[in-house]
Amino acid sequence: MSVRFHNCKLLTMTDGIKIEDGELWVEGSRITHVGAVKEQRDEKQWDRELDCKGNLLMPGFKDAHTHSPMTFLRSYADDLPLLSWLNDQVFPMEAKLTKEDVYCFSKLAILEYLTSGITSNFDMYYFTEQNVQASVDTGFRTVLTSGLNDFQSSIEEVEAEYLTYNNYHERISYKLGFHAEYTTSRALLEKLSDLAHKYQAPVYTHNSESLSEVQQCIARNGMTPTVYLNKLGLFEFGGGGFHCVHMSEEDLEIFREKGLYVVTNPGSNVKLASGIAPLEKMLELGIELGIGTDGPASNNCLDMFREMFLATGLQKLKYQDASALKAESVLYMAVSGGAKAMGLTECDTLAEGKLADLILIDLNQPNMQPVNNIARNIVYSGSKSNVKLTMVNGRILYEDGRFDIGADPGDLYKEANDRVSKIKG
Amino acid sequence: MSVRFHNCKLLTMTDGIKIEDGELWVEGSRITHVGAVKEQRDEKQWDRELDCKGNLLMPGFKDAHTHSPMTFLRSYADDLPLLSWLNDQVFPMEAKLTKEDVYCFSKLAILEYLTSGITSNFDMYYFTEQNVQASVDTGFRTVLTSGLNDFQSSIEEVEAEYLTYNNYHERISYKLGFHAEYTTSRALLEKLSDLAHKYQAPVYTHNSESLSEVQQCIARNGMTPTVYLNKLGLFEFGGGGFHCVHMSEEDLEIFREKGLYVVTNPGSNVKLASGIAPLEKMLELGIELGIGTDGPASNNCLDMFREMFLATGLQKLKYQDASALKAESVLYMAVSGGAKAMGLTECDTLAEGKLADLILIDLNQPNMQPVNNIARNIVYSGSKSNVKLTMVNGRILYEDGRFDIGADPGDLYKEANDRVSKIKG
Repeated sequence: MSVRFHNCKLLTMTDGIKIEDGELWVEGSRITHVGAVKEQRDEKQWDRELDCKGNLLMPGFKDAHTHSPMTFLRSYADDLPLLSWLNDQVFPMEAKLTKEDVYCFSKLAILEYLTSGITSNFDMYYFTEQNVQASVDTGFRTVLTSGLNDFQSSIEEVEAEYLTYNNYHERISYKLGFHAEYTTSRALLEKLSDLAHKYQAPVYTHNSESLSEVQQCIARNGMTPTVYLNKLGLFEFGGGGFHCVHMSEEDLEIFREKGLYVVTNPGSNVKLASGIAPLEKMLELGIELGIGTDGPASNNCLDMFREMFLATGLQKLKYQDASALKAESVLYMAVSGGAKAMGLTECDTLAEGKLADLILIDLNQPNMQPVNNIARNIVYSGSKSNVKLTMVNGRILYEDGRFDIGADPGDLYKEANDRVSKIKG
Repeated sequence: MSVRFHNCKLLTMTDGIKIEDGELWVEGSRITHVGAVKEQRDEKQWDRELDCKGNLLMPGFKDAHTHSPMTFLRSYADDLPLLSWLNDQVFPMEAKLTKEDVYCFSKLAILEYLTSGITSNFDMYYFTEQNVQASVDTGFRTVLTSGLNDFQSSIEEVEAEYLTYNNYHERISYKLGFHAEYTTSRALLEKLSDLAHKYQAPVYTHNSESLSEVQQCIARNGMTPTVYLNKLGLFEFGGGGFHCVHMSEEDLEIFREKGLYVVTNPGSNVKLASGIAPLEKMLELGIELGIGTDGPASNNCLDMFREMFLATGLQKLKYQDASALKAESVLYMAVSGGAKAMGLTECDTLAEGKLADLILIDLNQPNMQPVNNIARNIVYSGSKSNVKLTMVNGRILYEDGRFDIGADPGDLYKEANDRVSKIKG
């Protein structure tokens, strides 16, 4: 398929936050031209010529940490302390999940990503096969990371999945990972470290999300999760941490030195009362940041606009400084930073030869007017209602509120509710 | 005009947060039936019969503190410390505003309120006549409060406006108010107190938004703003405070005893790094709460969904307790609490005889599925993209992304940008 987007504003993100008028061509899955209006070859026939009417074309957002199948728990159990939420509500429900459930609930999440201009997700869950299939079938792009722990999966399974899903489909990739220090034994972590060395692969995990998690790790191992995991050799080939709310100076220094990514999840961190990650400090140290929504059980939505506002707003609160974490930095994190953390270096900007993962932002809505500064309008005032179109790998999956994902949303909602009823029993 | 909404879920808010199936009739500006499907009189002819397809009808949100005309400063100056933001950016720009500018920028704000399901605003600004006219001309509902201070307006003007705008138009009312303790002399406050006594009227003001404001008041007057203003007799007939972030026990006790409303503005309070208001404590004391967006210069958007998530999320953070400020309480604040604070006791619920200020929430979007709990879905996962229809005073002003406000949005955006360019000079 070939699409010519014309009459656009372009935020390519190839050179900071600059916006220029121009057009963009997509042929197959790739961007073949971006920039000034270009003379077309005589024979050129477009499948679609799309007049953007002065609206903004930019790279899609990357949801750099989520648990898609947890849509089924959205608003099922809220306003509860963390431990009773997890132990009494989440775990018993998850224990009843079938493979078919995971396929359905993952698709539901993908619909929601598309409405928010998210073009790929970094997903940690189990039933990997169905999670992958939901992404493949809908046309979405997914990077998986294993949620290995003492209760689910095994090192053999992780290795098998690593080999399978890195050679499975052009829109699927797989990173080594484990759930968290507090759910994974030292013996298992050592095996994962061996695997990381064998494949020279980065490793990702939930890290220092809550204060008690850090305190318990110190009590158990005499050191923080980051120091402990680093000592086990898990970060020799990079990787990253999700959340990273409660980090010591030494932890941050390890992240800097090893080039580890931090994926921040501000929506989840407020809703579960986990705290505010020290993003400003991380940026000062040169640590690369991405943004994730976390799963819909703890957020409860998969909306990058909310996360962007929270990412900067919470820094301003934490440091009591309205100038903390500028909008331009947040936008970079939500797009290119996340792409780097996920290894999606072909989806991070709009440039010739890059994969066509992009979105069209409607500037002709009241929350985007007047146009004093488009980038700040997006971060501080933007909403998923501004997402006119979401394209993944050269295919338009969402446009003007309608989905093209090979399934009827209404049928999917009905199926999801039926499955939830059955799980509730 | 008469409209029959049928095939709805109804959240009337007359009896907590309960949702039932049914229908709702609007005739003229009032609700004439709400509840079970009712046999229609034979001769009944509806101007419109609207099949809600199982979506949710609820009372509109009340934006209980805002400065509508400040849309012109959206994203003009962000990421700046409070004082340089105000003194170097906001005040010089505001000084150049004309009456015609205020009319245009107020209309732009009203468009945005409608997209977020906001059916009325509690507005503090100057150029009252144009602010009022924008609301009258678009079909919106506005409660004004005077922004009296040492530099703008006078006690005579406030009294004249009070008398004029409380007998001007069915959708307009006016409350006594002043900008803030730190911008208003004692002499002027005493005159306003006299006016409050003369009309037995409540008084509203910005109160204890920032810590330095409280400290400076203590240095000046030997007491906090709330204690000081109460001593001047300003709250003898009720009223309320906007922000109320930094409140002492004594301040809260005055609010409780005098039945004063607190309008919280969490979006603005994070963006300007002001802090987190102690809402949980206020609720424990029985203080009534509403929610406001504050003006678009400091937020930067007029979106009640963002404010609702922040209202509860920040409490969870502040008290390090994920169970703080439950979703149901937030929903009450955003609707009925705000209505009470604004004196809009006829717009607070869906009930026979009440004014028809209501919204239709689209549940058939991925962020609202599955339906474990609709109220929590709205607060934790909802977005302005779920607002299908906004009705004010029996008239549909917004439906499926289109406005019926007697002006073309495109023209308005163009005019707003032209005016901003001229102001920037």
